[in-house]
Amino acid sequence: MLRSAIVGSTGYAGLELTRLLLRHPLVAPPLLLSREGQEGGELFSPVDGAMLPIRPFSWELLNQEGIELLFLATPHEVSRAWVPEALDRGLRVVDLSGAWRLRNRDYRAVYKFSDEGEAADSVLSRAVFGMPELHRDQIRDAQLVANPGCYPTSVILPLLPLLKDGLIDVERGIVSDAKSGVTGAGKKPTQGTHFAEVSENFRAYGVFTHRHTGEILEQLGLQPQQLTFSVHLLPIRRGILSSLYFHLRHAATDGDIERSLRKFHTGHCFVRIFSPPRQPEVQHVAYTNFCDIGWTLSPDRKRVMMVSCIDNLGKGAAGQAVQNMNIMYGWNETEGLIG
Amino acid sequence: MLRSAIVGSTGYAGLELTRLLLRHPLVAPPLLLSREGQEGGELFSPVDGAMLPIRPFSWELLNQEGIELLFLATPHEVSRAWVPEALDRGLRVVDLSGAWRLRNRDYRAVYKFSDEGEAADSVLSRAVFGMPELHRDQIRDAQLVANPGCYPTSVILPLLPLLKDGLIDVERGIVSDAKSGVTGAGKKPTQGTHFAEVSENFRAYGVFTHRHTGEILEQLGLQPQQLTFSVHLLPIRRGILSSLYFHLRHAATDGDIERSLRKFHTGHCFVRIFSPPRQPEVQHVAYTNFCDIGWTLSPDRKRVMMVSCIDNLGKGAAGQAVQNMNIMYGWNETEGLIG
Amino acid sequence: MLRSAIVGSTGYAGLELTRLLLRHPLVAPPLLLSREGQEGGELFSPVDGAMLPIRPFSWELLNQEGIELLFLATPHEVSRAWVPEALDRGLRVVDLSGAWRLRNRDYRAVYKFSDEGEAADSVLSRAVFGMPELHRDQIRDAQLVANPGCYPTSVILPLLPLLKDGLIDVERGIVSDAKSGVTGAGKKPTQGTHFAEVSENFRAYGVFTHRHTGEILEQLGLQPQQLTFSVHLLPIRRGILSSLYFHLRHAATDGDIERSLRKFHTGHCFVRIFSPPRQPEVQHVAYTNFCDIGWTLSPDRKRVMMVSCIDNLGKGAAGQAVQNMNIMYGWNETEGLIG
Amino acid sequence: MLRSAIVGSTGYAGLELTRLLLRHPLVAPPLLLSREGQEGGELFSPVDGAMLPIRPFSWELLNQEGIELLFLATPHEVSRAWVPEALDRGLRVVDLSGAWRLRNRDYRAVYKFSDEGEAADSVLSRAVFGMPELHRDQIRDAQLVANPGCYPTSVILPLLPLLKDGLIDVERGIVSDAKSGVTGAGKKPTQGTHFAEVSENFRAYGVFTHRHTGEILEQLGLQPQQLTFSVHLLPIRRGILSSLYFHLRHAATDGDIERSLRKFHTGHCFVRIFSPPRQPEVQHVAYTNFCDIGWTLSPDRKRVMMVSCIDNLGKGAAGQAVQNMNIMYGWNETEGLIG
Repeated sequence: MLRSAIVGSTGYAGLELTRLLLRHPLVAPPLLLSREGQEGGELFSPVDGAMLPIRPFSWELLNQEGIELLFLATPHEVSRAWVPEALDRGLRVVDLSGAWRLRNRDYRAVYKFSDEGEAADSVLSRAVFGMPELHRDQIRDAQLVANPGCYPTSVILPLLPLLKDGLIDVERGIVSDAKSGVTGAGKKPTQGTHFAEVSENFRAYGVFTHRHTGEILEQLGLQPQQLTFSVHLLPIRRGILSSLYFHLRHAATDGDIERSLRKFHTGHCFVRIFSPPRQPEVQHVAYTNFCDIGWTLSPDRKRVMMVSCIDNLGKGAAGQAVQNMNIMYGWNETEGLIG
Repeated sequence: MLRSAIVGSTGYAGLELTRLLLRHPLVAPPLLLSREGQEGGELFSPVDGAMLPIRPFSWELLNQEGIELLFLATPHEVSRAWVPEALDRGLRVVDLSGAWRLRNRDYRAVYKFSDEGEAADSVLSRAVFGMPELHRDQIRDAQLVANPGCYPTSVILPLLPLLKDGLIDVERGIVSDAKSGVTGAGKKPTQGTHFAEVSENFRAYGVFTHRHTGEILEQLGLQPQQLTFSVHLLPIRRGILSSLYFHLRHAATDGDIERSLRKFHTGHCFVRIFSPPRQPEVQHVAYTNFCDIGWTLSPDRKRVMMVSCIDNLGKGAAGQAVQNMNIMYGWNETEGLIG
Repeated sequence: MLRSAIVGSTGYAGLELTRLLLRHPLVAPPLLLSREGQEGGELFSPVDGAMLPIRPFSWELLNQEGIELLFLATPHEVSRAWVPEALDRGLRVVDLSGAWRLRNRDYRAVYKFSDEGEAADSVLSRAVFGMPELHRDQIRDAQLVANPGCYPTSVILPLLPLLKDGLIDVERGIVSDAKSGVTGAGKKPTQGTHFAEVSENFRAYGVFTHRHTGEILEQLGLQPQQLTFSVHLLPIRRGILSSLYFHLRHAATDGDIERSLRKFHTGHCFVRIFSPPRQPEVQHVAYTNFCDIGWTLSPDRKRVMMVSCIDNLGKGAAGQAVQNMNIMYGWNETEGLIG
Repeated sequence: MLRSAIVGSTGYAGLELTRLLLRHPLVAPPLLLSREGQEGGELFSPVDGAMLPIRPFSWELLNQEGIELLFLATPHEVSRAWVPEALDRGLRVVDLSGAWRLRNRDYRAVYKFSDEGEAADSVLSRAVFGMPELHRDQIRDAQLVANPGCYPTSVILPLLPLLKDGLIDVERGIVSDAKSGVTGAGKKPTQGTHFAEVSENFRAYGVFTHRHTGEILEQLGLQPQQLTFSVHLLPIRRGILSSLYFHLRHAATDGDIERSLRKFHTGHCFVRIFSPPRQPEVQHVAYTNFCDIGWTLSPDRKRVMMVSCIDNLGKGAAGQAVQNMNIMYGWNETEGLIG
């Protein structure tokens, strides 16, 4: 049984990760840790309601408990600060924050990291972007897996196949209109997450400036002016639906699009391709690790609207982290993630 | 045109009050004031979207602006501190807080007022509990109206007629199981009002200890052991539904109950009595000043379940405050409140 | 007092129209009518809870009651069948359905009208597309006003100014990603409107094929390949948010866009222009007749995301119908619509 | 691997049951069957999205497929009609309907069974009320398990311990104010389950007359006049919270109540007792088979408000059905139900 630890189990992604690890057949119950300097406490187990102890973080404790794998569900500054020492101590790390996802320093600027420099670059060079459908081989041997953002997961998986096959006219621009449930905004109570400001409401936020934009551009190999990326807040707890709009380089058929998607995603057990007229819905992916993809071709067969759905806490965060762990340890990729 | 001022227009009750006063035909646009010591700002008008100035509070400003009527949508401590001076300066006050509602010092203990004493007692003796269906004549001439709490409004209006007529066996106890929308919990973001903790959830809180209990007991003339009062948080923005359970002293008919209700509420333009099998629903009172009342008799005709619905921001707060103002100034009681 | 009648007052748009007419100071309480051949009944008044009679439709009844203005909140086939006779009888008509909105026969094909021909063309030639911001002068004298669809209202008002000013590069295509609350889907219970299929869910529907597409193209003077229009179902009762994406012909500033919008919408009392970074939200237009418009410019200043919000039952249906009535009778355009 | 079949897999309870059986380690994928005379079809697998065939029901098919255990998620009339033959053919049956739960003919009257008589009585005499915490031993050997209703599950589990211990003053009456999510109302679209009639709304229904009343009375050994049972519709998908009010025979302490609950529920792995001030919430039981129980004692220690929460599709239907199956086949009671 693998011994792992989670820092940040009280946030929404950390709690879902705790739930998934507690029911995983090959992993011992994870050690739950508060952030360095914070007190411990208790967590109501999302599996059986037991009160699980949260212990104050220390490297010694990790050592004593024989921890091999460290999950960080922490703010990105914390991940920047801790990962170097974790790697030095020989731990493997799956980091759910945005700390180690981006190669391009311009895209990283949005995070305002205070530790940019050679040491950080050295860590970064060992980080693998943890999207199994793109980087499975590198994940297998990675010491540091940078778990992708929720929005990028929902945008990259549907678009990459068609981009690789040259179907999309990138010069005319791709529009990605994403909508997310409220758990994606974190657990800290704010005016913007107050029930009375979300329920019976809907609004856009972070247009052109969302910090997930860089991840999408980098993984898709697009230039900034080729992608218009916006996000909206849905009055639901969990789930993302991304509506993707683009022009085709040549008029195509549903068959052309389906072939491209199915070819790329062959063997990707968590990507489900829906043939028209079937369309993904958030409710079909909630509480799962699936990414559902559908599309509609315009009557002139030159434009496409694609729709993808994920659970922002599942494939968009904790589920994908467990999927990465499964790969890192050579297990069945679906272990603990279906049913 | 009456000149009035609102302190606390950015809270949910204060915002609804602003909306109602802005559309009231006999009232000038209210002066919006921040709490003493706080900066001013702007308020997005709930009527037409104009940016309304919020000015820092001062007694001089009230004087300069010729304010006659002061609405306090403030925490009860603020109301306790300000009302004595307001009365001294000759202002009339409608206070939406719990500061001046209770005669019984035991019931007041829950508020932990720091200024209990002769001066406060003197103010209190001039306060009228602002429920027009009970105290219309006193409200007319009151200098200080203590606007009722939202839960008490939903409990007192249906129960009082039957209590007065001696229909209820109070010795067997009355159960009041109330459920409220989230705006009743105030605008301050907390873990308990985070969308992801309220949506798809439901929970009880404040059982046996809610600070509105005293108001209900006092207005209904009940002893503490005769009322079991509980409250729950509904995943909706606005609205309260109270389910009331009691035994009858003698087996009765629907006609008996209906007569009692209609007799008491004759001429009460905001109380609607629904004959069985029609039942109140929150959606019919949302955004109104109505209190809807229905009931069901047990097959043995000895027990009753009554149901009442109000909008916690309407009849439960701002609407009732405007109704009180209408009475204080001798206007039609429904002025500005219907449609 | 104008005497009017509503056919279809039990649907969501018809009910909101009833509410607005009941509180309108210049209109008598409307005569409520069932569809020909259907029985009458009663309607719980959305204003004061009185039970309003719904009478079986007949032309004689309209005549007896001295009805001048007929509102049709009916399926489009019913409006096609009734409007010719209504006009013959000298009635003025505001039709909320899609029956008489489209000039282009290709766009009309989606409705599959069975009565296409000279007679219908003659009626159509007298119909005015009832969007006051575009056709106020014609509405004033119209005998037949074709009240616009909800989605088109939310798309045309923000885009038309920039199109007229030649700011938008239409050759690169406009994307309109619209999201609507459930009342837009009508009152008939279906699997798709069941609470358990909508709550905590989100999905696209009607991509490239929604029957409102023709209205948008026709009023904006666009060709089909220039607009990608999609719609999604939001888990809210009321409100539409449309996200609009386009390329500019030349790099522009926020000032350029704001000038274009404000110039066109000068004097349009229900259109509110929000300067960046302020963004429209559905909650600010719910239960109003406003259309709020905001936008964000891309960092390269060549692309724009615009956001517009309306209440689908307000400016998207009943509110706009009342606004049209106000113009038809020479009243203040905001009469009965603010507050 | 046990071979089982489900009739009614497209309803909400049937779908949840399908999900639970598909992930159960000791059960083969269930045979999905339409009701006799209805066509088959396909079901989107709630586990992995595969399209599962639904085959037309026939006894021959059950035989061919070697089915041992038949789950009926069907209307009660269907269960009445099929169970006798199923038993004759040697099948074991878990029936999720109300067909075989009640011994008392008066309580059964609400179902208006057309087949009352000796044959039905004979079947009934073999039926076991499938609540493991009450009847585990009989369930083990039962050929026919009548799976309890959702509301009764939430009411019986918290009340029975205190009733057995004589703590409750039943003569003063017990009030059970229950609130349920919309999946409890079934999948058929109706006016009452339309999103726009449920969202931002709340209402009572079925007061004093709900057909689950008899189950509660019978299992608790109460007389009709001793229980006031009401139900309300919550704007959530899944979950029941029951608020239970009663007087104690003698003043008691929290310790007295806790002892009674813990004694009875020792070894009941799906019942969680929360000590004050902790309170159950619907979100902690959603998507689980748990029943959470909490309580609050009045200041005079003579009255109690208990709160219980279950998932109406979990412990209230499909989860309890799987728990019963686990007992019937001698497996670990939690098999397939935790995590």
